[in-house]
Amino acid sequence: MTTDSPWLAQGEAKRQAILDAIPAKWRLADPVPPATEVRDVTGSYIQQYLSEREIEITESDAVHIAAQTTTGRWSAVEVAEAFCHRAALAHQLVNCLHEIFFDAAIEDAKKLDAYYAEHKAPMGPLHGLPVSLKDQFHVKGVETTMGYVGWIGTFQGKKDDTRFRTEESELARELRNLGAVLYCKTSVPATLMAGETINNIIGYTWNPKNRLLSSGGSSGGEGALIALRGSPVGFGTDIGGSVRIPAGFNYLYGLRPSSGRMPYQGAANSMDGQSTILSVIGPLAPTARSLTLLFKTVLSQKPWFHDPLVLELPWRDAVAEETRLRIDQAKAGKSSLTFGIMHWDGITRVHPPIARGLRIVEQTLKRLGHRVIPWNPPSHATAGTLGSTAFSMDGGADLAHHFGLSGESKASQVIITDKEPLSMTELAALNVAKREYQKQYMDYWNSTAEVTGTGSPVDGLFCPLAPHAAVIPNEYHYVGYTSFVNVLDYTSVAMPVTFADKSIDVRSAYVSTAESADHIEWNYDADTYHGAPVGVQFVGRRLQEEKMLTLAEYIGDEISKTAETM
Amino acid sequence: MTTDSPWLAQGEAKRQAILDAIPAKWRLADPVPPATEVRDVTGSYIQQYLSEREIEITESDAVHIAAQTTTGRWSAVEVAEAFCHRAALAHQLVNCLHEIFFDAAIEDAKKLDAYYAEHKAPMGPLHGLPVSLKDQFHVKGVETTMGYVGWIGTFQGKKDDTRFRTEESELARELRNLGAVLYCKTSVPATLMAGETINNIIGYTWNPKNRLLSSGGSSGGEGALIALRGSPVGFGTDIGGSVRIPAGFNYLYGLRPSSGRMPYQGAANSMDGQSTILSVIGPLAPTARSLTLLFKTVLSQKPWFHDPLVLELPWRDAVAEETRLRIDQAKAGKSSLTFGIMHWDGITRVHPPIARGLRIVEQTLKRLGHRVIPWNPPSHATAGTLGSTAFSMDGGADLAHHFGLSGESKASQVIITDKEPLSMTELAALNVAKREYQKQYMDYWNSTAEVTGTGSPVDGLFCPLAPHAAVIPNEYHYVGYTSFVNVLDYTSVAMPVTFADKSIDVRSAYVSTAESADHIEWNYDADTYHGAPVGVQFVGRRLQEEKMLTLAEYIGDEISKTAETM
Repeated sequence: MTTDSPWLAQGEAKRQAILDAIPAKWRLADPVPPATEVRDVTGSYIQQYLSEREIEITESDAVHIAAQTTTGRWSAVEVAEAFCHRAALAHQLVNCLHEIFFDAAIEDAKKLDAYYAEHKAPMGPLHGLPVSLKDQFHVKGVETTMGYVGWIGTFQGKKDDTRFRTEESELARELRNLGAVLYCKTSVPATLMAGETINNIIGYTWNPKNRLLSSGGSSGGEGALIALRGSPVGFGTDIGGSVRIPAGFNYLYGLRPSSGRMPYQGAANSMDGQSTILSVIGPLAPTARSLTLLFKTVLSQKPWFHDPLVLELPWRDAVAEETRLRIDQAKAGKSSLTFGIMHWDGITRVHPPIARGLRIVEQTLKRLGHRVIPWNPPSHATAGTLGSTAFSMDGGADLAHHFGLSGESKASQVIITDKEPLSMTELAALNVAKREYQKQYMDYWNSTAEVTGTGSPVDGLFCPLAPHAAVIPNEYHYVGYTSFVNVLDYTSVAMPVTFADKSIDVRSAYVSTAESADHIEWNYDADTYHGAPVGVQFVGRRLQEEKMLTLAEYIGDEISKTAETM
Repeated sequence: MTTDSPWLAQGEAKRQAILDAIPAKWRLADPVPPATEVRDVTGSYIQQYLSEREIEITESDAVHIAAQTTTGRWSAVEVAEAFCHRAALAHQLVNCLHEIFFDAAIEDAKKLDAYYAEHKAPMGPLHGLPVSLKDQFHVKGVETTMGYVGWIGTFQGKKDDTRFRTEESELARELRNLGAVLYCKTSVPATLMAGETINNIIGYTWNPKNRLLSSGGSSGGEGALIALRGSPVGFGTDIGGSVRIPAGFNYLYGLRPSSGRMPYQGAANSMDGQSTILSVIGPLAPTARSLTLLFKTVLSQKPWFHDPLVLELPWRDAVAEETRLRIDQAKAGKSSLTFGIMHWDGITRVHPPIARGLRIVEQTLKRLGHRVIPWNPPSHATAGTLGSTAFSMDGGADLAHHFGLSGESKASQVIITDKEPLSMTELAALNVAKREYQKQYMDYWNSTAEVTGTGSPVDGLFCPLAPHAAVIPNEYHYVGYTSFVNVLDYTSVAMPVTFADKSIDVRSAYVSTAESADHIEWNYDADTYHGAPVGVQFVGRRLQEEKMLTLAEYIGDEISKTAETM
């Protein structure tokens, strides 16, 4: 950290370049007050810089916006400008952007408006909808640092690579085909392997609802930007919770689909080629129906013809329709849906706000007449070990290489530690152990048919997505609540429930069962956590995206009704 | 190979035990004449030991048999006995069985008959259909050696393991649910990594059409048994060609589905946990429609709820229906199907019978009015390197362990050689290189839309499945014709075309492009190959089983008409 650290200056120069990309008219005149004075910069705080019309546009969800822009009621340019403005504000408030390309976005929006004027029809179902992307996706004309100082001015750390600023990831290509407008890329922790977002370029991405806390990670920039409505919907990636954590920490919905549905082709990644647990792409948004819109329209592009890892599995409307039918039958009292609920995983106890969030969910389900059963699965400790072994299989070689490009320091939040890489025989044993665990969990899920009373297994599982709400910096010590889903390759939707409240969520007498549990218990601080969003996780079996998204929309609406009364 | 080699005696004892499991009434009184005297033991040769009724039953295909047994026209016991008898003969002629459990099969058949008598309905769509299994599948009451002497009397080499003779693989369980009768397990090369079938228990599995030649491998016992009609349909596995090679070598159809369709759960395997190229399960049978019957009915068991690696992808009848519609339109001259044809892969030239087989296919397609385009894909040399690197990633540790259990010798045919295992970084690079190759091939396939004249890419690709027909022992030196499909994870159907004919298939002036090509050329011997079955491969994109099976049935029928006239 001396003058012998040129990476400090390189990171600072890039940080300034990001700020410089914001048009002068959208720069904040005064410094942002410290978090101790103004915790929450959402809502009225950020609205002070916006016109009523801008607020109307940016506080609409993706479905509503697309309904306007695909019918010519709102122009693509007006919508793009509103979100560019709000994204610029968001970045100045919480450091959530890596790349800003508003000019290109406005140009694209003009072309969309011209197209609509000429054809009296939209270019696609996302015509004129701004979509933000995590800084793993390559977009033409823009660089990708993924938070590494050593990647600045290069293609994924490779100098003089012709793909620098010319490559476009498959997802970006498909979004453009659909008519979406790309305008910014959002912050990540270097390595992507952290539940907070910190790097040597933008620094730390703060939580907009409570700037003492983290926005989550690794798609933390997406979480913060969308929480501030600087984007209506964006795409993150998830290998251990990286979509669900920032969704939950920011009062958003976030989908972790099973692997093989969304196209990862042409995106940057950490430890590319690690195939035991695949990172997957998923959308984040303030409403469940926005996730459905994006997931469904991307599938309409038949990504399986452009990405060898995508399965030929179009959006299955029949499954969504059948799920809606079951919801209607349940509403009519003719049958019930059944859910598992896991208040904690037997390893790490959860903070009071999370415990309360799960109670709100349980009360909601019971109020609706659904059956809720306790969840006693194969040990999640096994899943935790499988996950951490997989993530560290190369002994940290990949990230050491990328940090080494600039010599920059690694943040303490990164969950990969230097160790001996696995041998081929150990890797094979890991893959077998993972499959056996998946089989045990599958059998357990099947076995719930004996207790649901319907003759069928549960429709889904509700559980925490972290031991805590949006976390105090450097206090994220246990990712097992999300990573077990990646080990299983299940579908999971992060759902918003409530906010931490120091007057209700008081410390209670926990029983600690492990050192980490002691640690978590010790770190609960009702004052600091006050106001932090509380999310939960809604987990389904593998490749059940159509069912889970349909249920999440229904249950999410009902949860918000319950939360209002509690 | 001295008296210090107890594995010789152990192998011999097991070999004798297999023979002893054949009822005395079905044993051949006289020694089988040498292959130099009687090459072909199919047809009239094996029929000499069978009654007319047994011949009628065993020479029916699976679809016809199931139509009789599910309607009570044929009893399950009569059908089971006929196949047990014929399988016993087959084994004595070509050494194709590892396990014989005819008594249990007859008992099961009796129960099926009793069920039918009571319910006037079948237990399932395969009620009373005998199905043979490669000796990787565990069946209750029976052991699994997978060709290893060291596995005799153990569970996969583990002594005193409670799963010994008690375990049943998921596929076996599902077949029983469907009403199938299990009665034997078929021979494999120890390690499964060979295109011939040889081990220290049963010795060598010979080709029934020409006993100077190999039955192929690694599902060589299936190929030989079904060629002799000792089974109407059976299941093999394929990691580099192990279903398609024995299918092609035995004038059969064989399906290599993409990974994730058929349940591998609970089956023994080599190098379990190697996840770069997954071994897959597929059926072999004399007719394409038999493959469809088995594939479709297994999927009806929803294996995705019992095997974590199976995708929730039921039999897609809409795809099959659409394909039939396109065939009908083509027949009516309203449109055409389009196919790629690759006469050789630019690496290893093919023998004259294979070249002729491809010409028969091409003429058939043209006669039918379909469009055929030449195939100029990304280099198959890349696929070959990717495949061999993946298969040897552990440096041979897994097979060294299993050979080491008894100290037995490794056959020269095994394609895995001792070398340094890959490091984690090298493995990650391999996985990335594989995905990039898959992407290139996918893009190439897409690009054929520009030359088919239909605006769509080709419907499938015809190519050799080996450089030669059923091979001379120890002369299988190049598996690239099948393994590229495994690297791509594409759907492929092996199809029978013709037989090698020394009067037509004379040596021609080949241009050799590589050392292996010299070798192949040098080894063509029209006399020895005379009478060997010639199969080709029909390759489709990933997860296109419904389409490829439907097309294979149509084209296979037409090929046989062309072959008759040539």
